[in-house]
Amino acid sequence: MTFKAPDSLSEQIAHYLAERIIRGELKERERIQELKVTQAMNVSRGSVREALLILERRHLINILPRRGAQVSELTPQHVRSLYTLMMELYILLAYAVAERWRSEEELEPFRAIQMRLAEARQREDIFAFVDASFAIMQAAYPFADNPYLQQTLENLRPAIARTYYIALERRRGQMGQFGAVFDELLGAVVARDQANVRDVLTGYCQQNCELVLAALAER
Amino acid sequence: MTFKAPDSLSEQIAHYLAERIIRGELKERERIQELKVTQAMNVSRGSVREALLILERRHLINILPRRGAQVSELTPQHVRSLYTLMMELYILLAYAVAERWRSEEELEPFRAIQMRLAEARQREDIFAFVDASFAIMQAAYPFADNPYLQQTLENLRPAIARTYYIALERRRGQMGQFGAVFDELLGAVVARDQANVRDVLTGYCQQNCELVLAALAER
Repeated sequence: MTFKAPDSLSEQIAHYLAERIIRGELKERERIQELKVTQAMNVSRGSVREALLILERRHLINILPRRGAQVSELTPQHVRSLYTLMMELYILLAYAVAERWRSEEELEPFRAIQMRLAEARQREDIFAFVDASFAIMQAAYPFADNPYLQQTLENLRPAIARTYYIALERRRGQMGQFGAVFDELLGAVVARDQANVRDVLTGYCQQNCELVLAALAER
Repeated sequence: MTFKAPDSLSEQIAHYLAERIIRGELKERERIQELKVTQAMNVSRGSVREALLILERRHLINILPRRGAQVSELTPQHVRSLYTLMMELYILLAYAVAERWRSEEELEPFRAIQMRLAEARQREDIFAFVDASFAIMQAAYPFADNPYLQQTLENLRPAIARTYYIALERRRGQMGQFGAVFDELLGAVVARDQANVRDVLTGYCQQNCELVLAALAER
């Protein structure tokens, strides 16, 4: 375990607002007014401004000069853009694990996630399943040892979580299939088979993207 | 031309500090103290805190809980990490142009940059040459129409500029070669030849990375 300092106040505010955006309680293009957040949460205006910068970095809001912050759009074009980018970043990360793992022991975190995914699926717990999916990235970071890639992925994660939430019900029915994808991915990584890693992740991202687009179209 | 609002105060502070980091006036791991910046620039503490968040997003500083901000490291491992990531992002961007350009008119901005590169090279003006190189990205963004990719690249650009600065003298001697690389890249994009786009950009990024590593090794 790494030592984790308690989050700063602005991080806490950002986290609270991020959850509301991810769950769709704050809608696309909805304005987030500094003063309202300041009053509602009884925090300083400075902390709220910092929280908004953190949310902008995480692709959840846009800050427009003199017009303030608003929840970012999530059009089909946005969803496709997001998955196009994530796909390449996931592939880069998976390549790093494929290239650099040395012992079965190093792969242990991925085996543990495999079990978490299976358990979540048995309980039909989609939230636990999504958490375990994101844990795959965390487990892969040390292999890449790439702070730029890691920060970029962490900044994109809330936007991905937001799209997962939109397609939550559809994803619930696909847990078995996603679990099988991860088994296949881990097999390709262990075999250091780059072409297969790319194929599996391309298929996975495309399938996810289509689930979200289908859910968006029905709203 | 798009309308550009005047930068906010925190953006201006961030820009000033970013330039100092890029030019190496602020060194790796050097602490940036909020209070000192506040006093030296005669600005509010809140604006400085916001500026530091912007610099963190741009990979130029790290903000450590209770220990404040410090200029991010730039070890050989960092340089390799940065170029590994940029390479894939450049390829993604170039693929978008290759796939989506429709008329010679749409390619006009790239022809104009070709001329700027040639002029800068004739004047042996490495700064104008670097500016023109970054203008390629700007000209490519509308083809990708991908806000996530664009933000990610814009956030990484200052870190790339910082590595260019380290290798400035070495780069000065390579302008002719870099110009030829861009000619080749544009040819591959016009021909919609993905494999060639990948090859050219991979070679370009590797060469750049090695220039920076060689310059770092001599410091």
